Amino acid sequence: MGMLISEDLIGSLNETARAAHEDEFGALGRKLERRGVDIEALVKRAMAWSVAVPTWGVGTGGTRFARFPGKGEPRNIHDKLADCGVIQQLTRGTRTVSPHIPWDKVSDYNALRQEAAQDGLGFDAVNSNTFQDQADQALSYRYRSLANARSDIRAQAVAHNIECIEIGKAFGSPALTVWIGDGTNFAGQQSLSGMFENYLKAMEEVYAALPPNMGLFIEHKMYEPAFYSTVISDWGASLMAAQHLGPQAQCLVDLGHHAPNVNIEQIVARLVHVGRLAGFHFNDSKYGDDDLDSGSVDPFRLFLVVNELDEAEQRGAKGFDPAYMIDQSHNVTDPIESLMASAVEIARAHMQASLVDRKALSEAQEANDVMAAHRTLKAGFLTDVSPILAEARMRQGGAYDPIAAYRASGYRDRVAQERPEVKGAGGGIV
Amino acid sequence: MGMLISEDLIGSLNETARAAHEDEFGALGRKLERRGVDIEALVKRAMAWSVAVPTWGVGTGGTRFARFPGKGEPRNIHDKLADCGVIQQLTRGTRTVSPHIPWDKVSDYNALRQEAAQDGLGFDAVNSNTFQDQADQALSYRYRSLANARSDIRAQAVAHNIECIEIGKAFGSPALTVWIGDGTNFAGQQSLSGMFENYLKAMEEVYAALPPNMGLFIEHKMYEPAFYSTVISDWGASLMAAQHLGPQAQCLVDLGHHAPNVNIEQIVARLVHVGRLAGFHFNDSKYGDDDLDSGSVDPFRLFLVVNELDEAEQRGAKGFDPAYMIDQSHNVTDPIESLMASAVEIARAHMQASLVDRKALSEAQEANDVMAAHRTLKAGFLTDVSPILAEARMRQGGAYDPIAAYRASGYRDRVAQERPEVKGAGGGIV
Amino acid sequence: MGMLISEDLIGSLNETARAAHEDEFGALGRKLERRGVDIEALVKRAMAWSVAVPTWGVGTGGTRFARFPGKGEPRNIHDKLADCGVIQQLTRGTRTVSPHIPWDKVSDYNALRQEAAQDGLGFDAVNSNTFQDQADQALSYRYRSLANARSDIRAQAVAHNIECIEIGKAFGSPALTVWIGDGTNFAGQQSLSGMFENYLKAMEEVYAALPPNMGLFIEHKMYEPAFYSTVISDWGASLMAAQHLGPQAQCLVDLGHHAPNVNIEQIVARLVHVGRLAGFHFNDSKYGDDDLDSGSVDPFRLFLVVNELDEAEQRGAKGFDPAYMIDQSHNVTDPIESLMASAVEIARAHMQASLVDRKALSEAQEANDVMAAHRTLKAGFLTDVSPILAEARMRQGGAYDPIAAYRASGYRDRVAQERPEVKGAGGGIV
Amino acid sequence: MGMLISEDLIGSLNETARAAHEDEFGALGRKLERRGVDIEALVKRAMAWSVAVPTWGVGTGGTRFARFPGKGEPRNIHDKLADCGVIQQLTRGTRTVSPHIPWDKVSDYNALRQEAAQDGLGFDAVNSNTFQDQADQALSYRYRSLANARSDIRAQAVAHNIECIEIGKAFGSPALTVWIGDGTNFAGQQSLSGMFENYLKAMEEVYAALPPNMGLFIEHKMYEPAFYSTVISDWGASLMAAQHLGPQAQCLVDLGHHAPNVNIEQIVARLVHVGRLAGFHFNDSKYGDDDLDSGSVDPFRLFLVVNELDEAEQRGAKGFDPAYMIDQSHNVTDPIESLMASAVEIARAHMQASLVDRKALSEAQEANDVMAAHRTLKAGFLTDVSPILAEARMRQGGAYDPIAAYRASGYRDRVAQERPEVKGAGGGIV
Repeated sequence: MGMLISEDLIGSLNETARAAHEDEFGALGRKLERRGVDIEALVKRAMAWSVAVPTWGVGTGGTRFARFPGKGEPRNIHDKLADCGVIQQLTRGTRTVSPHIPWDKVSDYNALRQEAAQDGLGFDAVNSNTFQDQADQALSYRYRSLANARSDIRAQAVAHNIECIEIGKAFGSPALTVWIGDGTNFAGQQSLSGMFENYLKAMEEVYAALPPNMGLFIEHKMYEPAFYSTVISDWGASLMAAQHLGPQAQCLVDLGHHAPNVNIEQIVARLVHVGRLAGFHFNDSKYGDDDLDSGSVDPFRLFLVVNELDEAEQRGAKGFDPAYMIDQSHNVTDPIESLMASAVEIARAHMQASLVDRKALSEAQEANDVMAAHRTLKAGFLTDVSPILAEARMRQGGAYDPIAAYRASGYRDRVAQERPEVKGAGGGIV
Repeated sequence: MGMLISEDLIGSLNETARAAHEDEFGALGRKLERRGVDIEALVKRAMAWSVAVPTWGVGTGGTRFARFPGKGEPRNIHDKLADCGVIQQLTRGTRTVSPHIPWDKVSDYNALRQEAAQDGLGFDAVNSNTFQDQADQALSYRYRSLANARSDIRAQAVAHNIECIEIGKAFGSPALTVWIGDGTNFAGQQSLSGMFENYLKAMEEVYAALPPNMGLFIEHKMYEPAFYSTVISDWGASLMAAQHLGPQAQCLVDLGHHAPNVNIEQIVARLVHVGRLAGFHFNDSKYGDDDLDSGSVDPFRLFLVVNELDEAEQRGAKGFDPAYMIDQSHNVTDPIESLMASAVEIARAHMQASLVDRKALSEAQEANDVMAAHRTLKAGFLTDVSPILAEARMRQGGAYDPIAAYRASGYRDRVAQERPEVKGAGGGIV
Repeated sequence: MGMLISEDLIGSLNETARAAHEDEFGALGRKLERRGVDIEALVKRAMAWSVAVPTWGVGTGGTRFARFPGKGEPRNIHDKLADCGVIQQLTRGTRTVSPHIPWDKVSDYNALRQEAAQDGLGFDAVNSNTFQDQADQALSYRYRSLANARSDIRAQAVAHNIECIEIGKAFGSPALTVWIGDGTNFAGQQSLSGMFENYLKAMEEVYAALPPNMGLFIEHKMYEPAFYSTVISDWGASLMAAQHLGPQAQCLVDLGHHAPNVNIEQIVARLVHVGRLAGFHFNDSKYGDDDLDSGSVDPFRLFLVVNELDEAEQRGAKGFDPAYMIDQSHNVTDPIESLMASAVEIARAHMQASLVDRKALSEAQEANDVMAAHRTLKAGFLTDVSPILAEARMRQGGAYDPIAAYRASGYRDRVAQERPEVKGAGGGIV
Repeated sequence: MGMLISEDLIGSLNETARAAHEDEFGALGRKLERRGVDIEALVKRAMAWSVAVPTWGVGTGGTRFARFPGKGEPRNIHDKLADCGVIQQLTRGTRTVSPHIPWDKVSDYNALRQEAAQDGLGFDAVNSNTFQDQADQALSYRYRSLANARSDIRAQAVAHNIECIEIGKAFGSPALTVWIGDGTNFAGQQSLSGMFENYLKAMEEVYAALPPNMGLFIEHKMYEPAFYSTVISDWGASLMAAQHLGPQAQCLVDLGHHAPNVNIEQIVARLVHVGRLAGFHFNDSKYGDDDLDSGSVDPFRLFLVVNELDEAEQRGAKGFDPAYMIDQSHNVTDPIESLMASAVEIARAHMQASLVDRKALSEAQEANDVMAAHRTLKAGFLTDVSPILAEARMRQGGAYDPIAAYRASGYRDRVAQERPEVKGAGGGIV
């Protein structure tokens, strides 16, 4: 709380940009008015938007080859909340954080909720971890966790997930997200059907421990850390598992967890159709699960995904109430900057999608007027909605340019004074 | 029938190979005996194996750039049956053909069944075609067929499929296979969810026309001919459709219809688990839906797929009764040779999978002995089962070396005398 | 010429849009002025831009499964020039066409050049065709052309390419583009090194026939129509061939001819570095060589490619003088609309790249300020440059909205009256 | 040396397998004789084969998510040499090791060479490391090493590589292998051409330090650890760099460093053609650079690559003298077992390729007899050459079944007694 950036600084920087902003906001307003769109309604819609930030995302990430930490790496959940508070303060579109267990375990969750609330933050879905061995752990997950052939290892993984549910209650989390790395590196290593059956058995126990108002989000991923097969490798397997478990189980889609070339927005549409879309993990990727900043590789794909979400919301698709979260690895940038920039890019896609003339689009689709339909959709993407996003931020006390304000504030240097330097870590894991 | 190859020729060629064959068959028998495996049981298993041949597969295929026909191209279903008869005569493992409507329509299906039976052939699943416009067709499928936004176009496509069901009854076909190219080339061209809903509505009518003993096989494909989105693009969408329609609807897997790098044998395992595996379309591919000869690009992948099918059969997976078919495009080889070679390669994978010591495999899996499990599986693949396949062919009157026998018979030159030459076709479709 | 659209119509439609345009153009001018950028200079830069249109692109394309022709399909090069004339008239950014031999052969090339000039069109690189068999052709390209093992077939393909050089001279073409489908469908079908050596031998003869001022553009492609190996499959093979042949040989890059996930803008940078970039074939793709409309799948990738070209131009990279062409297949749209929309999207990327503050970008790069560098580049992409593009078109007599003007003109209906309907073509090539 | 496995144990296990082996070796001999092939010549050829083992490969690998160490992890180069000695002792086909600097630095390289020689081992190419920061390192490689924009960082990376050359001389290594992770995670982060130019400048200095008999091997990789662009991303860039540097520079190909679907054996053929193939890094992969055991995912691809190498050797391709090395990450198996199994699989591919009837293959290729050519090549692959490999091992004192002998020896338990347990490492790098 004491760490937040001075409101005076934000205000004075915003004031410097005021004249230019008003010219651009005004011009966009006139342009939209000519399309029959009220910019005020869009500003309000932009102000209502929010995406969760992962607590682990404010630390520098790495690869199996190396990790190059930056200055002022957060040491614990308190440092992480401070960093997330700055992100929310400047962007005003990241009102929740998504914690990770055991990394974010504390002794007093009520105190932590109050600490977060002081920075304007609440808690989103809690994430369990059975893809690593913890120091105090009895049995190893070397050969899988929830899908392990051994019932004692499965039981340990189930117990951890049930503990996460309890912690989630303490956090006020709406859901438990379960991502496992379980799979195999060799053909024949395990029975492909046997692993799935073991997974279902274990997840039945986790599901049974859910309170009625908590969701169980199943996150699929094509590969990595397993390189021959992965138990929950695609949305089909995720859906089969969710259907098996019950109505509180839903399917979480991460942009980087698919095979090359896959049409991800259509997967969103299918899960909406069947009423099982848990939500979306935003990031971007060019090759594998690169976990790059949202919108940095293929912003039109981001737009198309968000457009599908927007379309579902606007037509009131049954049971549609997804959770949105950023899930990225920041290896060469200041994580706070990357998370702010990503939050803005996702909000941009949301605003561009909001601009799509859905009536004209439907008419063109019904008439099989391919070119008109495509152009109607793309008109949203081609509109520079930056003035709306800036207006929405400033009306809520955020920054005209979050990264400029962050840099001007000296926050990173400030926290680096109390957070010790972390040495470059090269694990020799090649 | 009159076209079949002389049994004397086959017999005398087999006789020439006899001594070598007996040496190799004997050596393999001793080797398997040392593993506790009875070669006689495997020969019987090999003799029971069969895979269907597509009637259109005996014609030369092509690409959007060009088609280079060969000599003696079949003119009609009668020529195609003659060619398929030769394939079955020499390989003894392709006892059915899979017809395509409207290409294989005739006035008298009873006569056609008798004609086929004389060549030892029955009929497998019938395939509908709404990915092309036929000359006498009222409405165009330019903008999709069963998933079209226009109800009159959907109705035409439904009527065609219902006609196929009727023809299938006349053929004695166990199933109707529905593959559609429906999709879009542009983002926004159609509503991704709307297309799926239209598809389901249309398929409900097709499903309603099924007799109780006929299956409805839904075949997914990632892309081509649609290049932005495809309605039934993956096994998840296929499964959702099958679940929507009812128990007679099942999911057909084609080796070339997936995103790059996808683990196809795991998809087979998932569809077996949920009791919806219709069957498999065999071919091979390196890039997209290349439709190359089975086992010519990645024979170990073919083995792993067939191994999954074999494993399901041997453990008596509930409701497991798949249909197997070859589906390839032969652009630069004699289609008869390619189909015979492919039938042998699929039978090889089946025999290699049959050799896997499933008890030892299970024990290694339960012990998490990764190396032992992988080696146990791969031991099947590394065994040269050619002598078993040859023995199974010869015991049924087939050829020791089907391609050598075919070449010696002069069949292609013989049919080329009565089948007119087809000019090289370059469609200018680029 | 008589086919062109009425200037009065264009003028009156432009007039209708005038007030809105001036508001938006003015606002953009003020915004750019705040960045220190003169919008007038950009308008002039936009007016100087041009990309070639392929003559075959104005006909409806298709896939191996089917082709669904539209109304008023062009019958010959004269119809194609008329269509291309409309594209240039309305967009003012497609001042050349790229002809294809033998499809565009005529008896009098001087007359054809005059006919084109009347529509404001010149001729760009001429394309040879040895991926199909022509009706009057002695030897078949079924098993490759320039890379064939048989010297007589190579000689036929060489002769065709030399004829294209002669025709190119008559057209005034600056270059011959050689794309071959040569490759194999089976491992072992040919020697991978032998095919390359045969190709080089044949190309030496083609190269020897070049006049001094004509380039030889080598176009690589990963796969299709060959599905196991392709002789010139990537830029490495293309560069090896160009280096072998001599300084007039250069490497042409097509957006859709690469492996999944490849960084194409870096290939552009490498070919610029080595002084061998012939030019670029624009289109877009999601899966394979989908040949979709430029900028319709991944507009940021288009921007990054054009940005690399722009950067090379602005720093005066040695020998940098590339040819730009659209190369697409229009299967479900009016090809004229798709080509106009694509020309606008490519011009948009060019203008966005022109907006990048290269000095600020260099400074951020030198300081390893990753976020600042990325944001500086992306600022160009996020700017809506539509008003500059519209201004550049209108100043040259083009349309404010080319597609709206084209639709208002009734051009398609007009030509459909004299161009006979083409029946839906389903080749049965599956 | 004291760690090696008892020769008595190996001998007695071999004796147990003798009768079965002789039956199978005899049967294969007769079969090959019928093809006109002398099995004795093949045994000699198999005995002459060797592939290098990477010193780091005997430790357990991991992913960015976690590493799960096994028992008896090697602590230093001495432990690694002991493990590699066992691999060579049992397989007799891994006569050299490839060291990594700084991990394998010692004070006395002569003593180390003697230590290795006692286990029958020599040293192959030495590998430098500028993809990690070492504890005593002045400047960080966070933003690249040899391709860094800063000359002081480049100089540090050059100095490290020159040190590696010096160490390589001490090892008697024939070459220095340079793989860098240099690249970017964001579009615009660096100039794509500038990075390449900086790399070339730095490599010129490394090249200048080479003694005349030492090669400089450039290893390309598509992505990871950089996720937007990689400086040496493909064989084209690798070749450009090698050509720039001089004749001692060559291109090293790693099976897992390519885009999806790429035809790697054709890259081998191209680099052989241009006389720049440094050698090959064997492993296998399904998704990215999975570094799985050689031959475990796609053994036919392994065969096709080795076949290309074999073909080049047999026709005496000019300057062909490649280095072969295994480069894998063993995450869930005992690394010694995986390396032995991989060495056997690579030797298997080499022997299968040696069996290809190259005269018959050439004749079929010249006649465009596609099916005969493919079948001739595949006949090599389908032959079970296990008896030849076993015979070659046993004649040199190796094991009939290396993994069985290794397990029987209790080696792992023995070394685990003196090598301390390593705790499961979960870096929190996600």
